[in-house]
Amino acid sequence: MQLLQNTLQNIQGADMKTREQARKRIDALCKPPGSLGKLESIAVQLSGITGQLYPLVDKKVIIVCAADHGVCEEGVTTNPQDVTVFQTLNFPQGGTGVCAIANITNAKVVTVDVGVKEEIPHGAGVIINKIKYGTDNIAKGPAMSKEEAIQAIEVGIHVATEEIAKGANVLGTGEMGIGNTTPSAAILAVLTGCDPIEVTGFGAGVGNGGIAHKAAVIKKAIEVNQPDPQDGLDVLAKVGGLEIGAMTGIILGAAVHRKPVVIDGFISTIAALIAYKLEPKVKDYIIPSHASEEPGAKIAAALLGIEPMLHMNMRLGEGSGAALAFPILDAACSMMNNMVTLEEAMQLLAK
Amino acid sequence: MQLLQNTLQNIQGADMKTREQARKRIDALCKPPGSLGKLESIAVQLSGITGQLYPLVDKKVIIVCAADHGVCEEGVTTNPQDVTVFQTLNFPQGGTGVCAIANITNAKVVTVDVGVKEEIPHGAGVIINKIKYGTDNIAKGPAMSKEEAIQAIEVGIHVATEEIAKGANVLGTGEMGIGNTTPSAAILAVLTGCDPIEVTGFGAGVGNGGIAHKAAVIKKAIEVNQPDPQDGLDVLAKVGGLEIGAMTGIILGAAVHRKPVVIDGFISTIAALIAYKLEPKVKDYIIPSHASEEPGAKIAAALLGIEPMLHMNMRLGEGSGAALAFPILDAACSMMNNMVTLEEAMQLLAK
Repeated sequence: MQLLQNTLQNIQGADMKTREQARKRIDALCKPPGSLGKLESIAVQLSGITGQLYPLVDKKVIIVCAADHGVCEEGVTTNPQDVTVFQTLNFPQGGTGVCAIANITNAKVVTVDVGVKEEIPHGAGVIINKIKYGTDNIAKGPAMSKEEAIQAIEVGIHVATEEIAKGANVLGTGEMGIGNTTPSAAILAVLTGCDPIEVTGFGAGVGNGGIAHKAAVIKKAIEVNQPDPQDGLDVLAKVGGLEIGAMTGIILGAAVHRKPVVIDGFISTIAALIAYKLEPKVKDYIIPSHASEEPGAKIAAALLGIEPMLHMNMRLGEGSGAALAFPILDAACSMMNNMVTLEEAMQLLAK
Repeated sequence: MQLLQNTLQNIQGADMKTREQARKRIDALCKPPGSLGKLESIAVQLSGITGQLYPLVDKKVIIVCAADHGVCEEGVTTNPQDVTVFQTLNFPQGGTGVCAIANITNAKVVTVDVGVKEEIPHGAGVIINKIKYGTDNIAKGPAMSKEEAIQAIEVGIHVATEEIAKGANVLGTGEMGIGNTTPSAAILAVLTGCDPIEVTGFGAGVGNGGIAHKAAVIKKAIEVNQPDPQDGLDVLAKVGGLEIGAMTGIILGAAVHRKPVVIDGFISTIAALIAYKLEPKVKDYIIPSHASEEPGAKIAAALLGIEPMLHMNMRLGEGSGAALAFPILDAACSMMNNMVTLEEAMQLLAK
């Protein structure tokens, strides 16, 4: 609890003075004002986050949080639950989707067990911080206790802090947890007050009952648990997931250390919404990536006030979209570091 | 004429057998089928283009084609025409927007003068292949003769061929030409038969008469010239531009040498439409990049049957969007080269 409280108290907003300077320099570059669109706004954001007019994000880390979901017993997904442990062990081998994409910018992929149902052996390259062996079935009661939700968030803060201490200057969120579009849609339905069917999608493969059954399970979970939409922690504990909590912690951890954090698709955006509920200033540190195929993703992004940049029809998770957005941050930094102003260009040509 | 004819005759469609093999491997990778969306389709496309199951696009070149537009005298843009020569000389210095973005993947930027109004000095780092000193005013007559249009296309084929001979395995199209959204919109209005106002946008800065005046100039250009919508060369010559022709040539040149070509925004897509009119098989080689802010861009993309991936609100041109899409190609290749199949993953974990 102490770590979460301290973190929330110490998060500060962006450096407005450096943002202002960045905006000024960008407007003077040899191009029509505004013509580099979101590259410009990302550069301004990175300057505001880092306090540097010429930011660099050359040490990239994707943190993949893994956990299981008791709600799988309701038949919300076709995927066998042991895919979670299989992929969790697979990440350190380097052959998963997120690893292949992270590879293009030499980003490191770190895997954290925050609640996988099975035992992860030591020495498998996974950071083990298991809070419990998967959440409980939200259709029957809370996913976890409030204390466990706090612990899950604190795992994220802790891992983010460690990676930043080792040199990371940008983080990305990722997850692995069969069934986790169900709690994500549940959280979103609670926060928006909408009918679950509006935010329920196919996930990585919906169960036999289809989307209607999945939405009905979510409806039941909300009725059974009655989470308080004003209380992010309560929502996370009652209908959330351990890896969602850990990603919330990663976002808070990035913010408190003034580092940008790129969020992946639907599930990451839900974690970001919880972080935003706990401390709205985190928004200054959040950079979107891809537009997930899940129907709730658009609603979640709008609620958070972000606009994904990559339209790839991707729905893998793992942080794959965040990894694919890293080069866009590189481009924004390169614009600041390598592009010349109109005046500088004239001087160069006069030589 | 000979070069263009030979090129068109020698363009072949993608290698369907390798495409098939790629699709099979991708479906076996350790992820839900289809979950990497457009990364998968790009990988399949790259395999079909190159005939390699494990493609690589590590030698990237953006070719920026520069030319001026006689129609500027109609007041269609606020930008002074000498920005064209200024920026053309600026590219080899490395400080422009496209250079900064190309930098993130070590892509080379090559600049070609295909019709800049002023003399470009030798030794300035620009390839000089000037067909004429800017097009003529399309509101009064044809932009250029049919022979000049062919020459412009052949410049593009020639430069693409040279860069591929030097080792390039992926090209990107870019342009610099103050006023060139006007001929681009004119070409699109001719090809679709729509009212010019539907495809006329702000460009890099619309003139005092606003978009209505710009659309009226385009309408007049079409009435005066009566281009034949079935004849791509006729449309290009009558209401097009020299750099648009050169980009058409780059796309044809990439296709004949079986290399992928990433097209930038609105103006590049128009060049691609002309290339497609001349030889529909080029489509197998074209990879889209960003969704330009110009209203005609969406219509042009739909006409060509492509879907831009990057939604960045960019409208700089220069090939900046194409350069920003290069990492997506890298990610598609990395998926093929570095991701393991489910079976391979099980074998690794068993060790």
